[in-house]
Amino acid sequence: MTYAAPLAQAHPSKSSLDLNVRVEAIRACFDCAQACTADADADLSEERVRDMDRCIRLCLDCADVCLATGKILSRQTAFDFAALAIVQACALTCKACGDECQHHAQQGIIHCQTCMEACRRCERACNAISSSLASQPAIQV
Amino acid sequence: MTYAAPLAQAHPSKSSLDLNVRVEAIRACFDCAQACTADADADLSEERVRDMDRCIRLCLDCADVCLATGKILSRQTAFDFAALAIVQACALTCKACGDECQHHAQQGIIHCQTCMEACRRCERACNAISSSLASQPAIQV
Amino acid sequence: MTYAAPLAQAHPSKSSLDLNVRVEAIRACFDCAQACTADADADLSEERVRDMDRCIRLCLDCADVCLATGKILSRQTAFDFAALAIVQACALTCKACGDECQHHAQQGIIHCQTCMEACRRCERACNAISSSLASQPAIQV
Amino acid sequence: MTYAAPLAQAHPSKSSLDLNVRVEAIRACFDCAQACTADADADLSEERVRDMDRCIRLCLDCADVCLATGKILSRQTAFDFAALAIVQACALTCKACGDECQHHAQQGIIHCQTCMEACRRCERACNAISSSLASQPAIQV
Repeated sequence: MTYAAPLAQAHPSKSSLDLNVRVEAIRACFDCAQACTADADADLSEERVRDMDRCIRLCLDCADVCLATGKILSRQTAFDFAALAIVQACALTCKACGDECQHHAQQGIIHCQTCMEACRRCERACNAISSSLASQPAIQV
Repeated sequence: MTYAAPLAQAHPSKSSLDLNVRVEAIRACFDCAQACTADADADLSEERVRDMDRCIRLCLDCADVCLATGKILSRQTAFDFAALAIVQACALTCKACGDECQHHAQQGIIHCQTCMEACRRCERACNAISSSLASQPAIQV
Repeated sequence: MTYAAPLAQAHPSKSSLDLNVRVEAIRACFDCAQACTADADADLSEERVRDMDRCIRLCLDCADVCLATGKILSRQTAFDFAALAIVQACALTCKACGDECQHHAQQGIIHCQTCMEACRRCERACNAISSSLASQPAIQV
Repeated sequence: MTYAAPLAQAHPSKSSLDLNVRVEAIRACFDCAQACTADADADLSEERVRDMDRCIRLCLDCADVCLATGKILSRQTAFDFAALAIVQACALTCKACGDECQHHAQQGIIHCQTCMEACRRCERACNAISSSLASQPAIQV
């Protein structure tokens, strides 16, 4: 359904990142950005919107960071180690947002449950990129 | 795989747009943004990069417009008719980018073929939103 | 303070748009995106947040569209008429968001007054691009 | 000219960050995002585009990260320490992009000189945020 895998394979340059790890992280980032954008909006329509402040803020931040990260991982020309810092910041942002969503999910807010799943998956996918890069001496920071 | 459908269904507010039409447009926009981001980068690594100028520019524009449109369609609180203009501009951008990618696809550049498919699908999905809104007297522009 | 003018002047390609009109639109778009992002967040901290739903939604949409438009206008390689549709959609979005902000500004909410000014300026700047392009037979849609 | 300062002052919540440090970082991020977007496009029009690969890629990455960071810093509701990781990643990205631009500036490419200045200023502004936060025990990571 997404085009990340065929585009990565057809790229004239070879990436220093494992194809499957990279494709999963790209998908997870774009999916999480969409989920966080939708969840922030759904929070805004909740009756107890006052309690959703922190969730809205973290979801908006997380959407911004996931999009930046997903776009950066989509580029494989001249990959730079600075990109690794973004991927790690993205994992941290997804952790913070996922924790806040989990709190609301436990109180029965279904859209926060879905968003939490998107954040957890994206956190794992970003951590997999970090691990994959850490094991490559050439790009190690 | 994506969270657009469950999030749209769990939203406390009802959207004036048909759920399936909206979910497909959201997915098509985010997928096209990723494809265009990756294709611009792949173009940059082509031997005949000089011939790819217009494709790179249109892909970057298309990625920007698709992300804005995908995020706007992900919000269902207080939908405004101004959003319709963005959706229509997104369809036009996808048409322009898809045509340029088709030109390169016909010369055997595989990543442009994939990107063209993403653009065509997104153009159709945005046009389906326009048609769906045009038939609703309340939001008709 | 911003780099839009020197970058536009140092670009190897000539733009079909008037330099001053384009630079003002770029600045207005980025400034409005920042203002709308900050205003949506300030709305969220208002005591009567329930009344700010529509303002938050429109500000988030407007930030997304202004960023896409500001980035597209920052590119002068191979300008395409599809970009004109975005600029026009941006003017409409700024109009809708500016009207909503004006409503809250009249009730004494200072941050909405500032955001309204950013939206009005961006609407004018985008309309100036449209007028400038409409008078050029070559790119007329 | 920009609205960052009046919006920060009119916000109902107080930020844990120093107002001047935050406003300068917001401006520097949005300005750098615009400069990098324009510079990537100007690079593409250079005769020796083949030599500009890395500069284009880093400029596109830097624009994405600066926009995410500028938006995150524009929000002052419920600031979270995860945001600090983004600000630090932004400083690193600006460093990498500024270094690459400096290389081309030294060969007489004027638009890379301007972009380098934008990157250096944004790097400093992000580092000032980090220093400011590091001295606050409550948010220290």
